[in-house]
Amino acid sequence: VSAAEIRCNLDTWRERLERKLHQVLPSASENPARLHEALRYSVLNGGKRLRPLLVYATGGMLGVPAIQLDAPAAAVELIHCYSLVHDDLPAMDDDDLRRGRPTTHRRFDEATAVLVGDALQMLAFEILAADRDLPADAARRLKLVTLLATAGGSRGMTGGQALDLAAEHRQISLADLETIHRLKTGRLLQASVLMGAALSPQLDTDIENALARFGDHIGLAFQVRDDLLDVEGDTTTLGKTAGSDAMHGKATFPALLGMVESRRRLETLHGEALAALQSFGGRADILRELARQAVDRHV
Amino acid sequence: VSAAEIRCNLDTWRERLERKLHQVLPSASENPARLHEALRYSVLNGGKRLRPLLVYATGGMLGVPAIQLDAPAAAVELIHCYSLVHDDLPAMDDDDLRRGRPTTHRRFDEATAVLVGDALQMLAFEILAADRDLPADAARRLKLVTLLATAGGSRGMTGGQALDLAAEHRQISLADLETIHRLKTGRLLQASVLMGAALSPQLDTDIENALARFGDHIGLAFQVRDDLLDVEGDTTTLGKTAGSDAMHGKATFPALLGMVESRRRLETLHGEALAALQSFGGRADILRELARQAVDRHV
Repeated sequence: VSAAEIRCNLDTWRERLERKLHQVLPSASENPARLHEALRYSVLNGGKRLRPLLVYATGGMLGVPAIQLDAPAAAVELIHCYSLVHDDLPAMDDDDLRRGRPTTHRRFDEATAVLVGDALQMLAFEILAADRDLPADAARRLKLVTLLATAGGSRGMTGGQALDLAAEHRQISLADLETIHRLKTGRLLQASVLMGAALSPQLDTDIENALARFGDHIGLAFQVRDDLLDVEGDTTTLGKTAGSDAMHGKATFPALLGMVESRRRLETLHGEALAALQSFGGRADILRELARQAVDRHV
Repeated sequence: VSAAEIRCNLDTWRERLERKLHQVLPSASENPARLHEALRYSVLNGGKRLRPLLVYATGGMLGVPAIQLDAPAAAVELIHCYSLVHDDLPAMDDDDLRRGRPTTHRRFDEATAVLVGDALQMLAFEILAADRDLPADAARRLKLVTLLATAGGSRGMTGGQALDLAAEHRQISLADLETIHRLKTGRLLQASVLMGAALSPQLDTDIENALARFGDHIGLAFQVRDDLLDVEGDTTTLGKTAGSDAMHGKATFPALLGMVESRRRLETLHGEALAALQSFGGRADILRELARQAVDRHV
């Protein structure tokens, strides 16, 4: 796959996703208008959309038409956005800035931010269950619900955030840190890949296992990069407050391993992610590009 | 159906539900242990379990085996419990007491309470999608997901809570108040009835419409009774802070209509709920008893 073709695919999918998000989010003029305005504010804000792109890239590689991937791509992004809104709350990471704008609880209020997160979760599952563009096969839809709910729950993302908060201002082991990040970030990235695959008629256990490994490695790599950016980056470029990990006494890879070792760990994880894609040959080039973006990114 | 038989059915279902909740909630010793302890604390606390009982009673009336109703009954109760945990947060209704014990954010902390609510939502959908005791028919499971997600979302319960908060210390019309309560309380009660019905092979449009009307009326009646109890009741009996509506300047039926008119409205709604059950004859006796409990209750 040529670089131009990859770029063209990613641009097309980004457009599809934004259109889908605009469509599934209730209009800001519909009652309760303030809540709906806050929902749109929290989602339609120029995020990187890595998770939905993983859905499209994996599904596309395995022969799933893009129209069937719009709903799972939107659902996983809604879950990601809800987690950012709740994580930014004063009782959690207490952040004022997200994607270069005031966080939802700063722009609206705390109660609205809690409700935005709750409503986004419900909307994600409503879409998976009832969206008209998904294939009629109910068993596959149920698998999407299972993948997303499991990745988001107390044994996944929510559990990771709980462990992350509990680790603040404490010394933890590298193994514990990796567990936190695997749960907090890795599970949803992995679910994105597996949701794209779940709609494919070509899916078998070997493919699913390889993709699960890819998702796991790329999820952890993404978070190592995130930790590095919090040290290296500046607030304007990041669109969120730089140095906030150190400020909160967060357990991070740079804090535990130092910058040099963390960068080495990032490269290893990147290599392991690519190794998991080997059997797909050139078909996985877009996934490789997304992996590259995840580890090379400056935002 | 005799009074003894009704009592026996309700007791059996209560036991089934508690067993199911114990089983689906992760053990408090499983990591992240504090989050899992908080999940169990927030759910296994002697609630009235009206919503799950509506699931069992409606499904039972329409020939659905109880074992198939355990999962939807548990799922709807998890969603109800999550909403209580989030509604009690300082940024929302700021309550210290729930079911006679400290609220989740008081017993644990605010961040944990936010995460408990999030994890309960995910768990509810995971159960509907993946529980082994549900019938294999994936289309019916998807209908359960759709009913629950729609009732819980920004056009349902979450939207109702947003409108409720926005109405504090403001004069609103009776029509607006009824809209708030229909969304905030009615939609989930209605969904409980419809989820029980959704698994029945006997379901047709007439039955579904009658049950939807019943659920709507009983939902609103439940909330009128709630408003009355906040004025009439005392904190010890209620297990939550009495008089908190007035303290928060909440829009309520007593505030808008006075106590006498509110009681009259309650009776009317009760009558309308019973009227919706007419075509079911004696088969609906347990639903009638649950309706009676909802409007007669002192807790």
